[in-house]
Amino acid sequence: MKDLRPIIWDNEKNQLILIDQRKLPNSLEYFVCKTYEDVAFAIKDMVVRGAPAIGVSAAYGMALAELNNNNIACGSKRATKTKGFRLIEKAHNELKNTRPTAVNLFWALDRCMEAYKNNKSILNEAKEIHNEDIEICKKIGQIGEKIINDGDTILTHCNAGALATSAYGTALSVIRFAHYNNKKISVIADETRPRLQGANLTAYELNYENIPVKVITDNTAGFLMKMGKIDKIIVGADRILKDYTVFNKIGTYSLAVLAKYHNVPFYVGAPYSTFDYENSIEDIIIEERDEKEVKYINNINIMPEGVSVYNYAFDSTPAELITGIITEKEIIYPNKK
Amino acid sequence: MKDLRPIIWDNEKNQLILIDQRKLPNSLEYFVCKTYEDVAFAIKDMVVRGAPAIGVSAAYGMALAELNNNNIACGSKRATKTKGFRLIEKAHNELKNTRPTAVNLFWALDRCMEAYKNNKSILNEAKEIHNEDIEICKKIGQIGEKIINDGDTILTHCNAGALATSAYGTALSVIRFAHYNNKKISVIADETRPRLQGANLTAYELNYENIPVKVITDNTAGFLMKMGKIDKIIVGADRILKDYTVFNKIGTYSLAVLAKYHNVPFYVGAPYSTFDYENSIEDIIIEERDEKEVKYINNINIMPEGVSVYNYAFDSTPAELITGIITEKEIIYPNKK
Repeated sequence: MKDLRPIIWDNEKNQLILIDQRKLPNSLEYFVCKTYEDVAFAIKDMVVRGAPAIGVSAAYGMALAELNNNNIACGSKRATKTKGFRLIEKAHNELKNTRPTAVNLFWALDRCMEAYKNNKSILNEAKEIHNEDIEICKKIGQIGEKIINDGDTILTHCNAGALATSAYGTALSVIRFAHYNNKKISVIADETRPRLQGANLTAYELNYENIPVKVITDNTAGFLMKMGKIDKIIVGADRILKDYTVFNKIGTYSLAVLAKYHNVPFYVGAPYSTFDYENSIEDIIIEERDEKEVKYINNINIMPEGVSVYNYAFDSTPAELITGIITEKEIIYPNKK
Repeated sequence: MKDLRPIIWDNEKNQLILIDQRKLPNSLEYFVCKTYEDVAFAIKDMVVRGAPAIGVSAAYGMALAELNNNNIACGSKRATKTKGFRLIEKAHNELKNTRPTAVNLFWALDRCMEAYKNNKSILNEAKEIHNEDIEICKKIGQIGEKIINDGDTILTHCNAGALATSAYGTALSVIRFAHYNNKKISVIADETRPRLQGANLTAYELNYENIPVKVITDNTAGFLMKMGKIDKIIVGADRILKDYTVFNKIGTYSLAVLAKYHNVPFYVGAPYSTFDYENSIEDIIIEERDEKEVKYINNINIMPEGVSVYNYAFDSTPAELITGIITEKEIIYPNKK
């Protein structure tokens, strides 16, 4: 088992090192963040993506704000506690506004803010969040792998893998642990337009560990289900409401409807930090990203000038379409009476 | 109304001029065929695509074989009738083997072969097929536009437009005639991976006539239906069986399932030449095209080396998912008792 870690804290230089996911699969490069602004940019521009990985990165962003704040304080002796507080609050706000849908972002930022208010080190809090995430993802895999049968072909969408978390992944952790337990499985990855995380990232990390994977265009999934080529579907989640509505990458909802129609079990893998107990569906903003993501591929225009697009980054899937939600504690069956 | 014609017969030089659809939407270029081999290449490489357009082009391919055959006969005086027949048969076979799914191809080739056997000019037969196709597409639009209401938003997949036929299109002819009749409609075009005919061609030709169009990634359609943003779906067809199973671009089946789930009417526009009364579903070969179509976008690899793909070019949709099939004669309702 070769371990893929997208988020590394550099203790020597006090900096955050991220795998630059914009460069995969053709080149494995790193993106170094020395300030919280670097982290905010990395989240916005999708250097790092995936709900848990965004949370962990944002926490380190807060830690960088704290460290730089201390440096200013030591250097100029001008930064008062109040001024320091304002700077941390500024970092908190800027990081909060990077992306609207993934709830783990707000959860991690609030945890760091709380630690700061209690005079605890934000860096320690960030490291704790990071380590917890690794353990949680491991647990999701160990609990979830029980639903996988020897010989299963599993469809997944986008990337809910090691690259979306601190290690192992959520949906892909389930797949990994089935593989580690010698179940002969194969994976089909939706390429996941427009950003192609399935082709770029999921295929990359499964191939990296020699887990058999094939890629399809997103519009092929239904036909494969019709032909009986898909045994199970597992996806990640960016936010789960208390009625078990799941917000995840655009296309998840279509897959869930197709799964229902073809009697294919449809699972979601996600840590409890993805749950949002406060809001209801109307409160959630579905991020609409820049049209350019759809209009240009590798800088070439795929449609005529003047034509516009809908570029919803996420969709919502109601509980009645979901077989089970695999968490680090248990599998929740939303429709079991 | 500006008229877009993808297939032009050049009477002066006896050559076939095709819009090179591989170059759209960024450049409007033409591809000249002087031999039937040029036409075979154009069909295989998708210079020209769309079931009716493939049929018309193949007919002109046969005409080019006949004309070049006559030239050889006149020039060398060596080509006997028997030798001529063998050459025409060779052209027929090679053109037949360009693409396996669209039935219009075989229908047009057989019509030309029949004309040749009856000592008729293949070129005249090809011109007849061409002119008929224009009239047929017009009829499909005139008959079909009655299903469109003022204010409708219509989703379409791939390109079943002027560029897929001789003029007007099939699915897009319905949309065009609704627009010509001053119904305020708007269109949503699936980008249609891997070849992006929706973004490249459908958006191009609708924008060319100022019909409002937005493009989406294929995985967005279901979510738009959930939000109530799609009133109707109309697609084309490459082959229709006598039980009304429709073969069309990959992704059509998924759309039909999603339409059923959301109670969105799902229509198919196609001429009678698309009907295959002989074969049943098991007999039909679903073309699997080169993996490179999915693996590379603009010559850049989107997945790691060594990962393979499923690249089915078409899928099949059963009659129970289809509201109506709009032909040049009438609208067929497969599920009306």
